[in-house]
Amino acid sequence: MDNLGAVFLAEVVGTAVLVLLGCGVVANVALTKTKGSGGGFLMVTFGWGLAVYAGVIVSSNSGAHLNPAVTIGLITSGATEFGSGVPVTVVTTLAYIAAQMLGAIIGASAVWLAYKQHFDQEPEAANKLGVFSTGPAIRSYGWNLVTEVIGTFVLVFVIIGFGRAGEAGGLAALGALPVALLVIVIGTSLGGPTGYAINPARDLGPRIAHFFLPIKGKGSSDWAYSWVPVLGPLIGGAIAGFAAPVLMPILG
Amino acid sequence: MDNLGAVFLAEVVGTAVLVLLGCGVVANVALTKTKGSGGGFLMVTFGWGLAVYAGVIVSSNSGAHLNPAVTIGLITSGATEFGSGVPVTVVTTLAYIAAQMLGAIIGASAVWLAYKQHFDQEPEAANKLGVFSTGPAIRSYGWNLVTEVIGTFVLVFVIIGFGRAGEAGGLAALGALPVALLVIVIGTSLGGPTGYAINPARDLGPRIAHFFLPIKGKGSSDWAYSWVPVLGPLIGGAIAGFAAPVLMPILG
Amino acid sequence: MDNLGAVFLAEVVGTAVLVLLGCGVVANVALTKTKGSGGGFLMVTFGWGLAVYAGVIVSSNSGAHLNPAVTIGLITSGATEFGSGVPVTVVTTLAYIAAQMLGAIIGASAVWLAYKQHFDQEPEAANKLGVFSTGPAIRSYGWNLVTEVIGTFVLVFVIIGFGRAGEAGGLAALGALPVALLVIVIGTSLGGPTGYAINPARDLGPRIAHFFLPIKGKGSSDWAYSWVPVLGPLIGGAIAGFAAPVLMPILG
Amino acid sequence: MDNLGAVFLAEVVGTAVLVLLGCGVVANVALTKTKGSGGGFLMVTFGWGLAVYAGVIVSSNSGAHLNPAVTIGLITSGATEFGSGVPVTVVTTLAYIAAQMLGAIIGASAVWLAYKQHFDQEPEAANKLGVFSTGPAIRSYGWNLVTEVIGTFVLVFVIIGFGRAGEAGGLAALGALPVALLVIVIGTSLGGPTGYAINPARDLGPRIAHFFLPIKGKGSSDWAYSWVPVLGPLIGGAIAGFAAPVLMPILG
Repeated sequence: MDNLGAVFLAEVVGTAVLVLLGCGVVANVALTKTKGSGGGFLMVTFGWGLAVYAGVIVSSNSGAHLNPAVTIGLITSGATEFGSGVPVTVVTTLAYIAAQMLGAIIGASAVWLAYKQHFDQEPEAANKLGVFSTGPAIRSYGWNLVTEVIGTFVLVFVIIGFGRAGEAGGLAALGALPVALLVIVIGTSLGGPTGYAINPARDLGPRIAHFFLPIKGKGSSDWAYSWVPVLGPLIGGAIAGFAAPVLMPILG
Repeated sequence: MDNLGAVFLAEVVGTAVLVLLGCGVVANVALTKTKGSGGGFLMVTFGWGLAVYAGVIVSSNSGAHLNPAVTIGLITSGATEFGSGVPVTVVTTLAYIAAQMLGAIIGASAVWLAYKQHFDQEPEAANKLGVFSTGPAIRSYGWNLVTEVIGTFVLVFVIIGFGRAGEAGGLAALGALPVALLVIVIGTSLGGPTGYAINPARDLGPRIAHFFLPIKGKGSSDWAYSWVPVLGPLIGGAIAGFAAPVLMPILG
Repeated sequence: MDNLGAVFLAEVVGTAVLVLLGCGVVANVALTKTKGSGGGFLMVTFGWGLAVYAGVIVSSNSGAHLNPAVTIGLITSGATEFGSGVPVTVVTTLAYIAAQMLGAIIGASAVWLAYKQHFDQEPEAANKLGVFSTGPAIRSYGWNLVTEVIGTFVLVFVIIGFGRAGEAGGLAALGALPVALLVIVIGTSLGGPTGYAINPARDLGPRIAHFFLPIKGKGSSDWAYSWVPVLGPLIGGAIAGFAAPVLMPILG
Repeated sequence: MDNLGAVFLAEVVGTAVLVLLGCGVVANVALTKTKGSGGGFLMVTFGWGLAVYAGVIVSSNSGAHLNPAVTIGLITSGATEFGSGVPVTVVTTLAYIAAQMLGAIIGASAVWLAYKQHFDQEPEAANKLGVFSTGPAIRSYGWNLVTEVIGTFVLVFVIIGFGRAGEAGGLAALGALPVALLVIVIGTSLGGPTGYAINPARDLGPRIAHFFLPIKGKGSSDWAYSWVPVLGPLIGGAIAGFAAPVLMPILG
């Protein structure tokens, strides 16, 4: 398999694991009759954080983006390759994003299978959609966008910070753990208003799965909101990508 | 002691520690009048995750399988030895699984001793069995099996991912921590429908202990369900073992 | 940019990230209608702990003080430079503290933006102030001061302990994680009476932001209490700085 | 200062930090009007686990026992020195235990100061004692002893396991973290019946402090139970010390 093919597969598998475990924790907390029903928001943040951990572990060949906002941030940072030896071009960028979307759809479908009985017996359609995609606590497209931009900026900016710290101080030895801790804290701290998509593939992929899967008693896929958790993370990632190469050599 | 004897003992002790601390957290959360009564599902997932951590620490000579699904996954992956220098044969495979079962029975019995007064005063027989073995939130043998297959596939597939990442990037220095984090997230994210056995010894061993121990006021050991958390993990582990050597060199 | 300029910027960015994520978790738990509303004190302590983690990661060039009590503790310990190559003088001390204050104001303002709708719809003015600054559970200036002194003493004393352990045993490889764990435990264990400011910039900066920002329906900024979470941490940090160079060579 | 003097001071300071942060989390969860009131058992287990983390960090010169059961376990394991260069003799053993007791009394007294107002306003005398010392959920001296023996056996046995794993696989680089994780899981999993003293100094030292401190409205110090969390941990530690040198070379 050529290098781009391997990168594509790595992003598919990594994002599928990420979304399986990430949407899975929401299913456990939100759906009726599960063992973790009502487990609380802290459990959700740990589930998503460690979902990233597991996804990164199995996709090191692609640089483990697993998120179009990370891919875009690398581009705006002026990177010439994607952390995988693959050069930054229009084709490779599209390959990354397509793989992330495909992986997210696969992961979300697997969550549906793992929680099939609980989807079937769940009375609230909104809870079913909530397993797949984020929605705002208070709907206000402009402010919801601001929240997603801030959250994703922190994600992509600090990930680039890890990169540099790793070179100097040995943090690389921790592998995927710093990213997991970062995603936990973005959840605890910036997840309140919108449920922290901070990743267009994580939100749009499962929304597409929700739209097409034969989920019993499902309601709307809320396409009216769907652009917010796509555009917000892309903007936040792009800004972080612009800012990082300027600031990081100064910050350390 | 010859090498297979040492491996046998390591699997016994490691699985006993795993089950003592894992079933212990369920006892603390589920039984009446304990200090941690009603502590929540997040506490259960941390307890089981760190139970794996402690079990792995004390069984490195055997490769710390502590789980027949891991042993089977290594076989289907085409491994020629078990991560302990012991070759893969029918006899050594049976030795691993027998040691895991024996350790699980010992660990579950020690939980009963540590929580003796709380077992005696617990009014619900179902809570007593729940300390020992998993049971489905919604009984549906087919879908329960699917959930266990998916959970165990993630476990065994990512464990093999750790192995490779460790060689390249120094993750090995973290020892048992990555597996603990993985087990936490499988709990938070895939534990909702069936309580995530993901380990035949962890489920069948304590069920046997429950059957034989003179537990006051105990009810049925639910043998009708007992095959699900055995077969599901074995299938999931076997599939992961087949998939890993094909996919892992591509994924990284 | 000269070295002091880079250090200034690093402290601004690091403290802004720290306060964005730290005050953010309080907003998530305390404000109305958020996803994490009522998430509990453990979630707050993890949010603040990992906020420190993220802040430290992006400010290594300045030594990542992010806290005037740490800066003062280094001075009273007899340090000749601030862990950044910048010498200890009156001017550099003021630069550190000014940067920390500026960063805290920026971070707190970003929290307001990220949670704008939730601030607007929050009925209780006290909950709004609580996102920005700490307040005592039982108001008693003298005893509140004692609590802050003890908490900050532990923070600064053990941070210096990390420094030494790092040289000897490789802890440096963990980078920001030990400090994060320390801040989590100070929160769980000493945060009960006063909400653990343990950092004058973390408390006074957001209080200034609260005073000037056009927050809908905000009440008093409680200036009567504002000196406690400034003076307490400075005293605790200074004592730790005096104690550490005497005790640490003995303790190990 | 001679070596035994330094070891004595390190055990005093380390145990004081351990008990300050450990008993502190209980104060936060149990006493009236604190910020963390009702924070739950998971928060208690994290507080105690990370309290051990902080205590170990500042006492590396003594080998960071901080617990007579660890000291006794080292003796029964046949060690000739205490991990600090100090030889195992009657005098050095007594010095270790005296330092641990003194540190625990100091730490417990500091908790009282940090939570002074909350002790004063707490109506239940039992909650006050509960901050200092453990008590059984169901009083039954024999079974309570069994629980403490099992918990301490796991603690001391796995700590010795860390030692060996550290030599082989680099776990030493994590310093105090493995012990912290172990103490968390002993809490979640074996803390239900007796509140997991697993350390005679941690229980008896604060009980002595409770007896002598002028705590407003305090009740009995429950001397009738006080021998259980002393004898149980000593027995468990001693058994682990006997078992470890026999089993560990076999287990790995």
